[in-house]
Amino acid sequence: MLNTLIVGASGYAGAELVNYLNRHPHMNITALTVSAQSNDAGKLISELHPQLKGIVDMPLQAMSDISEFTDGVDVVFLATAHEVSHDLAPQFLAKGCVVIDLSGAFRVNDAEFYQRYYGFTHQYPELLEQAVYGLAEWQSDKLKETSLISVPGCYPTAAQLALKPLIDAGLLDLTQWPVINATSGVSGAGRKAAISNSFCEVSLQPYGIFNHRHHPEISTHLGTPVIFTPHLGNFPRGILETITCRLNAGVTQQQIADVFNQAYQNKPLVRLYDKGVPALKNVVGLPFCDIGFAVQGEHLIVVATEDNLLKGASAQAVQCLNIRFGFAETQSLI
Amino acid sequence: MLNTLIVGASGYAGAELVNYLNRHPHMNITALTVSAQSNDAGKLISELHPQLKGIVDMPLQAMSDISEFTDGVDVVFLATAHEVSHDLAPQFLAKGCVVIDLSGAFRVNDAEFYQRYYGFTHQYPELLEQAVYGLAEWQSDKLKETSLISVPGCYPTAAQLALKPLIDAGLLDLTQWPVINATSGVSGAGRKAAISNSFCEVSLQPYGIFNHRHHPEISTHLGTPVIFTPHLGNFPRGILETITCRLNAGVTQQQIADVFNQAYQNKPLVRLYDKGVPALKNVVGLPFCDIGFAVQGEHLIVVATEDNLLKGASAQAVQCLNIRFGFAETQSLI
Amino acid sequence: MLNTLIVGASGYAGAELVNYLNRHPHMNITALTVSAQSNDAGKLISELHPQLKGIVDMPLQAMSDISEFTDGVDVVFLATAHEVSHDLAPQFLAKGCVVIDLSGAFRVNDAEFYQRYYGFTHQYPELLEQAVYGLAEWQSDKLKETSLISVPGCYPTAAQLALKPLIDAGLLDLTQWPVINATSGVSGAGRKAAISNSFCEVSLQPYGIFNHRHHPEISTHLGTPVIFTPHLGNFPRGILETITCRLNAGVTQQQIADVFNQAYQNKPLVRLYDKGVPALKNVVGLPFCDIGFAVQGEHLIVVATEDNLLKGASAQAVQCLNIRFGFAETQSLI
Amino acid sequence: MLNTLIVGASGYAGAELVNYLNRHPHMNITALTVSAQSNDAGKLISELHPQLKGIVDMPLQAMSDISEFTDGVDVVFLATAHEVSHDLAPQFLAKGCVVIDLSGAFRVNDAEFYQRYYGFTHQYPELLEQAVYGLAEWQSDKLKETSLISVPGCYPTAAQLALKPLIDAGLLDLTQWPVINATSGVSGAGRKAAISNSFCEVSLQPYGIFNHRHHPEISTHLGTPVIFTPHLGNFPRGILETITCRLNAGVTQQQIADVFNQAYQNKPLVRLYDKGVPALKNVVGLPFCDIGFAVQGEHLIVVATEDNLLKGASAQAVQCLNIRFGFAETQSLI
Repeated sequence: MLNTLIVGASGYAGAELVNYLNRHPHMNITALTVSAQSNDAGKLISELHPQLKGIVDMPLQAMSDISEFTDGVDVVFLATAHEVSHDLAPQFLAKGCVVIDLSGAFRVNDAEFYQRYYGFTHQYPELLEQAVYGLAEWQSDKLKETSLISVPGCYPTAAQLALKPLIDAGLLDLTQWPVINATSGVSGAGRKAAISNSFCEVSLQPYGIFNHRHHPEISTHLGTPVIFTPHLGNFPRGILETITCRLNAGVTQQQIADVFNQAYQNKPLVRLYDKGVPALKNVVGLPFCDIGFAVQGEHLIVVATEDNLLKGASAQAVQCLNIRFGFAETQSLI
Repeated sequence: MLNTLIVGASGYAGAELVNYLNRHPHMNITALTVSAQSNDAGKLISELHPQLKGIVDMPLQAMSDISEFTDGVDVVFLATAHEVSHDLAPQFLAKGCVVIDLSGAFRVNDAEFYQRYYGFTHQYPELLEQAVYGLAEWQSDKLKETSLISVPGCYPTAAQLALKPLIDAGLLDLTQWPVINATSGVSGAGRKAAISNSFCEVSLQPYGIFNHRHHPEISTHLGTPVIFTPHLGNFPRGILETITCRLNAGVTQQQIADVFNQAYQNKPLVRLYDKGVPALKNVVGLPFCDIGFAVQGEHLIVVATEDNLLKGASAQAVQCLNIRFGFAETQSLI
Repeated sequence: MLNTLIVGASGYAGAELVNYLNRHPHMNITALTVSAQSNDAGKLISELHPQLKGIVDMPLQAMSDISEFTDGVDVVFLATAHEVSHDLAPQFLAKGCVVIDLSGAFRVNDAEFYQRYYGFTHQYPELLEQAVYGLAEWQSDKLKETSLISVPGCYPTAAQLALKPLIDAGLLDLTQWPVINATSGVSGAGRKAAISNSFCEVSLQPYGIFNHRHHPEISTHLGTPVIFTPHLGNFPRGILETITCRLNAGVTQQQIADVFNQAYQNKPLVRLYDKGVPALKNVVGLPFCDIGFAVQGEHLIVVATEDNLLKGASAQAVQCLNIRFGFAETQSLI
Repeated sequence: MLNTLIVGASGYAGAELVNYLNRHPHMNITALTVSAQSNDAGKLISELHPQLKGIVDMPLQAMSDISEFTDGVDVVFLATAHEVSHDLAPQFLAKGCVVIDLSGAFRVNDAEFYQRYYGFTHQYPELLEQAVYGLAEWQSDKLKETSLISVPGCYPTAAQLALKPLIDAGLLDLTQWPVINATSGVSGAGRKAAISNSFCEVSLQPYGIFNHRHHPEISTHLGTPVIFTPHLGNFPRGILETITCRLNAGVTQQQIADVFNQAYQNKPLVRLYDKGVPALKNVVGLPFCDIGFAVQGEHLIVVATEDNLLKGASAQAVQCLNIRFGFAETQSLI
């Protein structure tokens, strides 16, 4: 039985994380915390997220000094803002905790990236070196040996699961950049009051064209440039990505199917479609990334879906935990 | 041709009002204003409400002193907060303008009401006396002669259009209070950033049980107590009210139909259903209140729907204007 | 370990049932069946309900003769049409199976009821006598000893959980009939092609006024007349009921709270709100019925919510199973 | 005053057309018809589309022989199925009517196209030759002189308005095919009962990948191959298209802006965004196509939105009418 602390539990991904860990047979939640300034301090998590009422009614405790919360803690989940994770991760590591960070603070090993896309100067290049990028299906070995896991962004998870096997197998003509069109539910913007989030203003619409933070995260980890255009959708949860690529000459549908099957045959949280294409509703509330594809001539369209809060955040965090500690990969997720 | 000024044009009802008045052949919009403190001052209304782009691209001007905007103005629409309307209405009346107020500032002739439900002390009892309550189908004669029109609240419009003819005709046993269950779209809460308005938090739910401001507005104007339970619905626009009443002994379905037909036979913005019942979608974007009903034994259920921003606000304001100045009642509305 | 057969597994409630039973540690699903005429025969359940892909990929088998499916079966769930359940239940009982029926075929011990509301003549008055109405919180003892459980309708579950403790405690003045206004998601209409179900036609709207099948189910089991007005809502799942009652003279808010607390203190699937009121989203995807209330003078408003497919159907069916066989009441539900 | 007949008025586009023509000061609707087999024959259009109640309450008449309906008719609108339009158009032309067809029956001058994508053999090559493709902003001159107008498909309208000026100006490197990702509301599938249309089954999802009928319509009229991937969205109306292109070397943002401005400066139904990008809600219920764009390096993303039933069907049909007969281009549309 491992003790775990959840920092920044008040958001949508935090609530999902709490729910998973609460039912995990090998995990004991020691506390849920929010920042000392938060209005939510002192409330029960089930007041903010009433679906948890009767399931998890723990209070959200104000944390100003981490040492009040670290006694006996084995694993810390950071569901905090990027800069907060950046500041807290080394403190928890120094206490001997395994840190699983859901923010962007350790996703890309490049100091310039944080300056440009996140607006702060990264102070811990050695942690950027150590951190394992938790794209779980592709990092099993490294995950088992690290103390700092950086859970990928929501859009990058689906995009990489869709493209990485094809790129690694050399099937794509990358001189034509893959075009990733993605649509996300509004929960991706977090739990906050904002005109842009308000019910009557939300409407299908692209945003962050050519300058979204997840753009370089995808390119860097895939090792090739892409075009990534995110859209806000009029639904609370889920991401659907439609990816258009150019194939190398002579690549067949069967080759693509083979590559996908080989990559994911023992990966229970990636579901491959051998007919039809994924729909958003198939994954909402579930920890899967679903992938389907179609080919015509030299063009390939891959469709990948996931719940942005689950495989795109909390479920993948728990999947990384499970791999790190040798539990069944889907423990408490399905 | 009348000159009109629209004060507080930045909200959802304001935008609808601007759209109606822009296409009104007898009205000329002189300016759109917002409060001097508003962040929206200087923007085009079509930046806030892009559906108006290419139709009305007037700027929202900051108004600190009304006299900068009153030259030659015949009619002022106040789509402002309750206290703002309360303060501005007498100023515009003093300039000789006809004032059509969409707020609650002059709806009920009872000073106590404002203290309790709106949180301010009303300073103008003589205006409460003069103001005509613009439930348009029932106030044609008075509307023609007033300078201060108070447009009814959204919920009260549908509730009164449904109940008033039945009560006036003595068909209801009012010892059992009519039960008004109403569901409104989120635009009823206004254009603002708030967690309660945010896309992922909105969900069908009652609110303001036993203490909503529209409760006493309905009771006072109908002259009888009611039970009014508003709900927030997961849609942007529209109100549906399901009203359960007890009939006096012996009242027949035909009598009810006759009373409705007589009340609304020449009222083009009330549509009566002789079969079936109204659905929300039938009125969204349209200036109508739709009414249907069913009877069993001594119980009557009346269903009334409207677009909360139109018949529940801006369309009724324009309907009052049309009646006041002798234009066709539906001018620019259908 | 009990063997279970699920008949009529292709609908929305059927899919939820399959999901619950698949993860139930004491249950083994032997087969999923559909009628021999169904187009779905031969498909995998995960083709119809792709959220189950990788979780339950069993085929839907055509069943023309039950004896092909009854060997070793301990429990049969009928998620079938009313008349089909009526015909099949006695056959499965004759084979020694415990039958848990989700249809309306055995809910009311009154032959006339079936004629009028379901359009068929009931052939098994002795089964109507034996069947236990599975309103789980109120029937624990009887459930333990029966072979035929009739799971209540979706609307009646919430309505009765809200009203039964108050009526039993004598707090309500029933000379004024309780007014139950209920709104259900579209999945309540089942999985089928129909104009009325089609995406562009669905809109908040009452239906079945004064003549819905669940009306007499509620009245009969509560033992008192009510007014029940169902509405279709523009969402896939969930039911919200707003119930307006008259209290007996002198009844206090505290008395009502006490009665609710006493009724449900050991009932984990009913969640009482001591402040605020339930919202639909709090229960969607969860097996709870949430209840809150407000009082003013002699009037009481009770608000009850549930997921129509879960506590209103499949979760309650599994809850009945758990009680019947002595498993933990919430086994596999939370 | 022109007399007009609307054939196939029972669908969603038909209802919009009726609404526009009913308020058109130069048009007189002589009759609304449906096929002689339709269940809707004899109903009022406002029974099927209750938003029209009190506005247009004309009956839908069964038409078996067109000559019962052609006396004195100047213009016929065909809002019928493709094969029906194919059969009826020549009959109405023979009677001297101007025909405006909203189906796909005359959109592409290539007999093979109908065989492959519409499943029938086209019998009227001479009409394919004569028909003017009513992409209104680009065909003003030809529209004024034709008797057969073929209104473009919904997706092709937005796609061509976005791409045609850029292609004509030679700004695009077409060796990399433009990638058109489009999402449409469910009304695009028509008014019919189908599982795929049913409320609980609709979910964001691509469909018709590489083989949608609008794919060759776009390619043919643009004169260059494209990749077109349509998606079903979880909303009733509207289309959003996100189009990714490669620019020729050295093309600047300013050049693109200039080309768009020049193409649409006098075209009131195309709205160009000089900052921000279009959102779906800005055009729903309105006759516009909104276009915005962004550039980075050699890549260009153009975003185009429209209401699929309006600029994508009925509004463009009326716009063609207005141009054909010399009325103001936006008459009765804004």
